[in-house]
Amino acid sequence: MAEVSMSDQPSIYLDNAATTPMDERVLEVMLPYLRGNFGNPSSVHSHGRNTRVALEKARKEIAGLLHASPGEITFTSGGTEADNTALLGAIAAYEVKHIITSPLEHHAVLHVLQQAANKNNIRLSLLKVDRDGRIDLNDLETLLRDKDSKLVSLMHGNNEIGNIADLGGIAALCEQYHAYFHSDTVQTIGHYPFDLQNLRIDALVGSAHKFHGPKGVGFLYTRKDKKIPALITGGSQERNMRAGTENIAAVVGMARALEIAIENQEQHQKEIQALKQYFKDKLLSAIPEVSFNGLSADLENSLYTLINVSFPPSESNQGMLLFHLDLAGISASGGSACSSGARLGSHVLQEIGTDPSRENARFSFSRFNSREEIDYTVTTLKELYN
Amino acid sequence: MAEVSMSDQPSIYLDNAATTPMDERVLEVMLPYLRGNFGNPSSVHSHGRNTRVALEKARKEIAGLLHASPGEITFTSGGTEADNTALLGAIAAYEVKHIITSPLEHHAVLHVLQQAANKNNIRLSLLKVDRDGRIDLNDLETLLRDKDSKLVSLMHGNNEIGNIADLGGIAALCEQYHAYFHSDTVQTIGHYPFDLQNLRIDALVGSAHKFHGPKGVGFLYTRKDKKIPALITGGSQERNMRAGTENIAAVVGMARALEIAIENQEQHQKEIQALKQYFKDKLLSAIPEVSFNGLSADLENSLYTLINVSFPPSESNQGMLLFHLDLAGISASGGSACSSGARLGSHVLQEIGTDPSRENARFSFSRFNSREEIDYTVTTLKELYN
Repeated sequence: MAEVSMSDQPSIYLDNAATTPMDERVLEVMLPYLRGNFGNPSSVHSHGRNTRVALEKARKEIAGLLHASPGEITFTSGGTEADNTALLGAIAAYEVKHIITSPLEHHAVLHVLQQAANKNNIRLSLLKVDRDGRIDLNDLETLLRDKDSKLVSLMHGNNEIGNIADLGGIAALCEQYHAYFHSDTVQTIGHYPFDLQNLRIDALVGSAHKFHGPKGVGFLYTRKDKKIPALITGGSQERNMRAGTENIAAVVGMARALEIAIENQEQHQKEIQALKQYFKDKLLSAIPEVSFNGLSADLENSLYTLINVSFPPSESNQGMLLFHLDLAGISASGGSACSSGARLGSHVLQEIGTDPSRENARFSFSRFNSREEIDYTVTTLKELYN
Repeated sequence: MAEVSMSDQPSIYLDNAATTPMDERVLEVMLPYLRGNFGNPSSVHSHGRNTRVALEKARKEIAGLLHASPGEITFTSGGTEADNTALLGAIAAYEVKHIITSPLEHHAVLHVLQQAANKNNIRLSLLKVDRDGRIDLNDLETLLRDKDSKLVSLMHGNNEIGNIADLGGIAALCEQYHAYFHSDTVQTIGHYPFDLQNLRIDALVGSAHKFHGPKGVGFLYTRKDKKIPALITGGSQERNMRAGTENIAAVVGMARALEIAIENQEQHQKEIQALKQYFKDKLLSAIPEVSFNGLSADLENSLYTLINVSFPPSESNQGMLLFHLDLAGISASGGSACSSGARLGSHVLQEIGTDPSRENARFSFSRFNSREEIDYTVTTLKELYN
């Protein structure tokens, strides 16, 4: 993205798990729908038909890329709305009496489930996690033996520590014990291949701005034989699954972004994984006392897009690491951007018991990052820990 | 918008109540946020601060244009989400026991209230309406005497027949009888002046694409002393009123669109009202047997942006009027676009008892329409009814 020069302040973006820059090719396909093709897709005249055709084409494309059916894809305003819709819809439709999730979920899942459990007197079980944030599938199986109607929600790739869950294994257990299975896949859609013909999952979600698409749009996949009701009701858009005038430009942009992501997925993965490895190796030799949170340093079992670093205790940096990086023109993160407003520490790092005397930072990468940016970042970090 | 030429098929857009074309000046302010200024507004680094500043500036602008406080404005994905949030939030926060609304509300209100009433065993009263769609304020006052906790939801400008409600009068009654008052103002925000310092309303909503802004964004105004909970929960965005990464480009576009709308409101009103008058006069002289639904022909008491026409019975046009118009390159509407998918007739026209042997069409105007477009439309209609 940004170039490092001697004269200018660099602007290095290493917070791609929070949001990604939009691909110029995505904007290109959106522009006609921000200009002349403005009809309401639900209108029956030519202005409406033009956008309706584009809307359904986008749905078909996205479904095809995930090996799903178009009727299983509902467009939403983003990942959070999609998660809320899936969880509250499943709880209502299946009269859920037992919710099983993990303490490391994104708040778009955890807060919704805690509120729904409180409000409706539903049993809520949080899976045990180890010091590296691994969930325990034996624990899951024990809980699944409950005869009541069950909802399981477990994320695919953790947005803070990068741990990747065994979706196939969890799905098989949920099938065996007749539980509704939702996964927050916001960090993995567009970054990993999905085959929803063969993965028995009931609901998953995507957010376009996590894979170089526009903000304000996402989708919810719901398996066709597991219907749930809408969260936002009113007009009959999205086959009564989501009321409100369709955000056609954003939907078309999301489809293009997913197409670019999936068509080049292996290549992107190779490049970004190499960048992560490069960062890890350089950082370890610059500051040997660093360690890594969760499984994020384990290249096989974590998102190739991020690494979560635990820095050695340092009086001068205590509480100031991200500020120092920001001053040097480097954007990294302490946790989920969604929680920043709350000015609390990361609930994920707290759950896995990270050392409070050490400062943590998440660096997350995209195909728009370069080795030069990593070099500058590691040099800056080395100076801070000298 | 479109020009009528002899050689090309014209493309005349008279469905501005469904959605409006975006003003090019709106797209202009959005583009930087679709390109370089892509940071997550909830991130604390420079990329996030850039968009956070723009987000709060947009909030301040919108609040200022409505004489509200920035803290009273919550950004949403559109009018429907804003209506859902207000209604379900008020029902929960104030333990509403009696909902008072009208049968002419948009489905984004009516369906939500019917579902909530059914689910929670809440009394639901629909105000009486006369043949012109007028609601009865005496009826409202009688219902308001109920001592239980009450919610009143009455729209400002009806999206189908254009009737404008006396918001100030309703607000005063609601204040007197301690009812929570929400109004679906989707058709009037940006088209009429609002002074929320002096209008005692608890919640109202705006949708940017109804006033030449982008689709997929809207706002909810909630009076500061009447708190309600969020509908979409998760991250702590929007002061915990609406979780999900903020749609910064769309929000910036909405603020610009509202600014253009309000700054030129009187001029736009004058022009569009003259266009409506011109259409009405020409149509009456071309097809004297037409009549008008609701109050839409009454220029003082209806939206200046739309007119709803009842055409004389005609064998050749029965059920085909909109199709014939579409063939001639004219986009008009039979009712709310949001209901088109349902392929049902308009619930509004049904409620006021329109003659089923007559065909109805809503023509809705914007500042981008011209007299030439009206001329062509009336000529086309005259041919259809010859």
